[in-house]
Amino acid sequence: MSELRWTKTEKIVAKRAFEKCYQQECEAILTKLKEKIATADKPSDIWLIHDFLTEELKKIEDKYDYRYSILILVFARLLKEGWLQVSDLDGIEKDKIEKITYLGRYNKNKIE
Amino acid sequence: MSELRWTKTEKIVAKRAFEKCYQQECEAILTKLKEKIATADKPSDIWLIHDFLTEELKKIEDKYDYRYSILILVFARLLKEGWLQVSDLDGIEKDKIEKITYLGRYNKNKIE
Repeated sequence: MSELRWTKTEKIVAKRAFEKCYQQECEAILTKLKEKIATADKPSDIWLIHDFLTEELKKIEDKYDYRYSILILVFARLLKEGWLQVSDLDGIEKDKIEKITYLGRYNKNKIE
Repeated sequence: MSELRWTKTEKIVAKRAFEKCYQQECEAILTKLKEKIATADKPSDIWLIHDFLTEELKKIEDKYDYRYSILILVFARLLKEGWLQVSDLDGIEKDKIEKITYLGRYNKNKIE
């Protein structure tokens, strides 16, 4: 996978798609956090909130690794999890998108 | 300090005072947390919130150590920080209270 070359245009598209997913996922964490805090009413809830946040941020840090050598795998995961849409990749060559959708076990027929 | 004996009544009073402080301090953390979340609007804010929570819980875990051998010191700290009131200690012998207020650099004249 590391031999893939990314053109300047593809890099711009990829970076934008990556940032969009990151932003959306962080917003989703913030929303869940607000829900948890709204119903927190005892000291032990603070520890549960902290555990939740620690776990979510660990996942984010592991997942959002912007290196071109592994970007296909990162995008495949984001696609599978629903943060990325195939349309976010417009401008990236077909071969790369096919790798992403294949690795993401994505059923393209659902959106085409 | 470890040679101090706590009577059954004193233990009941001490435990209640300790729990009150713990409860209040956890509620204060929850309130600060809600304020921080209300103004959070970008991904990096989640990390700041997590850092805040990690630090606050570490302080709580260090501070709320209920062992009779160090309880005078724990109460002195809670008094100094404003979580404990001298009146919370009604039922505990004068000598212990004097140690707590002295160690807490507490000006008794202010409330007497």
